[in-house]
Amino acid sequence: MTVDHPGSEGAGSPLPARRDTRLDPYIGTYAERTHGMTASAVRALFAVANRPEVVSLAGGMPNIADLPLESLGGAIARLVAEHGTRAMQYGAGQGEPVLRAQICEVMAEEAISAHPDDVVVSVGSQQGLALLTQVFCDPGDVILCEAPSYVGALGVFRTYQTQVVHVAMDADGLDPIALREAIASCRAAGKKIKFIYTIPNFHNPAGISQPLERRREILAIAKSEGILIVEDNPYGLLGFDSEPTPAIRSLDDGAVVYLGSFSKTFAPGFRIGWILAPHAIKEKLVLAQESATLCPPVFSQYTISAYLQNFDWRGQIKKSRELYRERRDAMLAGLQAHMPPGTSWTRPGGGFFVWLTIPAPLDAEAMLPRAVTARVAYVPGNAFYADGLGTRHMRLSYCLPTPDQIIEGTRRLAEVMGNELSINAIFSNPGRPRALHPYEAPGPDQR
Amino acid sequence: MTVDHPGSEGAGSPLPARRDTRLDPYIGTYAERTHGMTASAVRALFAVANRPEVVSLAGGMPNIADLPLESLGGAIARLVAEHGTRAMQYGAGQGEPVLRAQICEVMAEEAISAHPDDVVVSVGSQQGLALLTQVFCDPGDVILCEAPSYVGALGVFRTYQTQVVHVAMDADGLDPIALREAIASCRAAGKKIKFIYTIPNFHNPAGISQPLERRREILAIAKSEGILIVEDNPYGLLGFDSEPTPAIRSLDDGAVVYLGSFSKTFAPGFRIGWILAPHAIKEKLVLAQESATLCPPVFSQYTISAYLQNFDWRGQIKKSRELYRERRDAMLAGLQAHMPPGTSWTRPGGGFFVWLTIPAPLDAEAMLPRAVTARVAYVPGNAFYADGLGTRHMRLSYCLPTPDQIIEGTRRLAEVMGNELSINAIFSNPGRPRALHPYEAPGPDQR
Repeated sequence: MTVDHPGSEGAGSPLPARRDTRLDPYIGTYAERTHGMTASAVRALFAVANRPEVVSLAGGMPNIADLPLESLGGAIARLVAEHGTRAMQYGAGQGEPVLRAQICEVMAEEAISAHPDDVVVSVGSQQGLALLTQVFCDPGDVILCEAPSYVGALGVFRTYQTQVVHVAMDADGLDPIALREAIASCRAAGKKIKFIYTIPNFHNPAGISQPLERRREILAIAKSEGILIVEDNPYGLLGFDSEPTPAIRSLDDGAVVYLGSFSKTFAPGFRIGWILAPHAIKEKLVLAQESATLCPPVFSQYTISAYLQNFDWRGQIKKSRELYRERRDAMLAGLQAHMPPGTSWTRPGGGFFVWLTIPAPLDAEAMLPRAVTARVAYVPGNAFYADGLGTRHMRLSYCLPTPDQIIEGTRRLAEVMGNELSINAIFSNPGRPRALHPYEAPGPDQR
Repeated sequence: MTVDHPGSEGAGSPLPARRDTRLDPYIGTYAERTHGMTASAVRALFAVANRPEVVSLAGGMPNIADLPLESLGGAIARLVAEHGTRAMQYGAGQGEPVLRAQICEVMAEEAISAHPDDVVVSVGSQQGLALLTQVFCDPGDVILCEAPSYVGALGVFRTYQTQVVHVAMDADGLDPIALREAIASCRAAGKKIKFIYTIPNFHNPAGISQPLERRREILAIAKSEGILIVEDNPYGLLGFDSEPTPAIRSLDDGAVVYLGSFSKTFAPGFRIGWILAPHAIKEKLVLAQESATLCPPVFSQYTISAYLQNFDWRGQIKKSRELYRERRDAMLAGLQAHMPPGTSWTRPGGGFFVWLTIPAPLDAEAMLPRAVTARVAYVPGNAFYADGLGTRHMRLSYCLPTPDQIIEGTRRLAEVMGNELSINAIFSNPGRPRALHPYEAPGPDQR
């Protein structure tokens, strides 16, 4: 047991130092913001996901095995031999002009009209989020996020000591009524709202999408309230059932900062994403990028540029869509076949994730070690909330395992849940006390 | 003329908005830290440096034309074909274990004994600096830096709203007496010193190095005062005249955080550097890296790992040293032949840079446009000071131009200086008033 000795850190104190002080001699010297830097559930699960006997429904790693690796290797070899002295040199902080022009072509697939001057290349979309937060947020500033929201974004927002205010979703994504209420409530409390962070397509982790009309409503609210929208869109081109819905950015170029990525449509190992921002914001982002890295990886940019120029990238995305659709279907079939009564889930029209709501009194976080023992992994729902809620949910990903593995994974998971429910029934365990919160009822779409 | 109207930003004010408010509609919404984010002199010069008629002695771009590009391309092609699904996937936030082990071998060249677990891969050494500053510094915290210091580090330190306190250098680098004085003076003023930032080898921009005995002195001061040393060492293996001096980190593994980079010894376009840190600090850095980028570029890491494994990287560095030595000799010969009386400069034993002190009343910043008109570029000394001093200095780099270009560059520069001095003599222009500061006299070594 650790006893807290008041004043034990003072110089010359006769009392022994606290144990954590002894373990880390630098503990008094870190910045305030390090208190918010904690290991995410996703990180801890990387190790688990790598064990071959576990079916991991946890990670968000894309399938890249079907890329034309042989010919891609050849293209990169030519790139090095012919343009190596530029591709391997320092580059512009904003990113390479040729790639920025190609990025505009990619965005045109979602009805965005943009100029390469307004694009800033980032070290994956994650760094785009970090740069934006660095440019906009002082400690205590509010960011409005869907409930639930992307775990990596919540990590960045914590690192910059912001306050995340969650806003409920309904079957069509971010709920306009809840959004208005959240804005009014923050303003009444004298808080500064810096932006609305939203994932309109195939939401991570909720697996639902905003129809065009909903996007218009959210944009209208943001504009009337003078609040910027940050539209995070890594999955927009990975829809299974229809043409891409126009991006929010396609409806307005002054009120929206758009984040894109090649991690899901090509490969994440190059760490190339981008930010499309209004001119004045773009200028700040370039300075932030220069301070952070001097320039984003030049060789990665040349490689992706060569890929976009010499390969049928649209055809490749189409192939990926077919593959992920088959896996989504396997997951929905597996859940339908195996899940105990009282379980519900979203039916994503694209992307990588299904959001599962499990019956009371199950707790997804508490159950995880037993699930891993039963050789299936997932991400507990509370990873996607800034406030510890979400333990009656879990994120299941179908992007990397095969259809057979996915179905087996849902079977194992259902078995674990069934066992937990039986034990709970025997001992009448009421489960751990849970806070009630408006945005957990009804939660995301559970059609 | 802009007239400031008090209260003109209030809602419903009848007065016109200030001009900058009109230009940037988001101006009231940025974070405080953006006030410190300004374009560096080095950035503005990238455009100039690219014009073919200008001899650029400004940039710090390494020579990579002599790398074995053809066979390197082949090695990367095999990497993609055989290991593409791992090399192009997400990876560990800390960096790939194989590369971290190889990095320990590279550091052994400078007498460092380290474990791969204590290495964190960064997006170039620049991002290593950014992560460290993020982990240690709250706004207002003090960082002790050499006078002058690396422009990119000063940019990061500004972004995190720290206070840079410069410490004088002498012929052997960071001056221990000045260091003790700076520490005492900061502490007397109640300021928190977070670390000493030093570049012990072939200093950028000063071009001087700390002998082993000086390193011991600085380390002893840091340890007795309980202040961490951040040792930034991109050029350590690029010495011309002798074996590498043992790194400060080789003398102590608890009081030093070491920053390394492949940008100067291999190629900067992959954006791979590293941080070697005591265990507890390393843990914080990994969390900061995950928040910033999820993981550093995996493909770059695999590429560098393949290069270290399959190529004679020690032999390649030896070749680079010969090339840079020849260019250093050309620069020293050019300066000797052309510079007007009253000019002095450092004689680097390695690395990329010479630090020039120009005669009063010349002002390196004011003179730059005329130098560029005369087709020679450099970085004015004030870029390397956090406080605007340094205009009687300039950084000259010899890493990229050929020996003939370097000699011609020094001739053009000397001509510009000669013209300026003549005009000044005619008009008895006393030059712009300059602050005197202890660390500008005697300034870095001018042997």
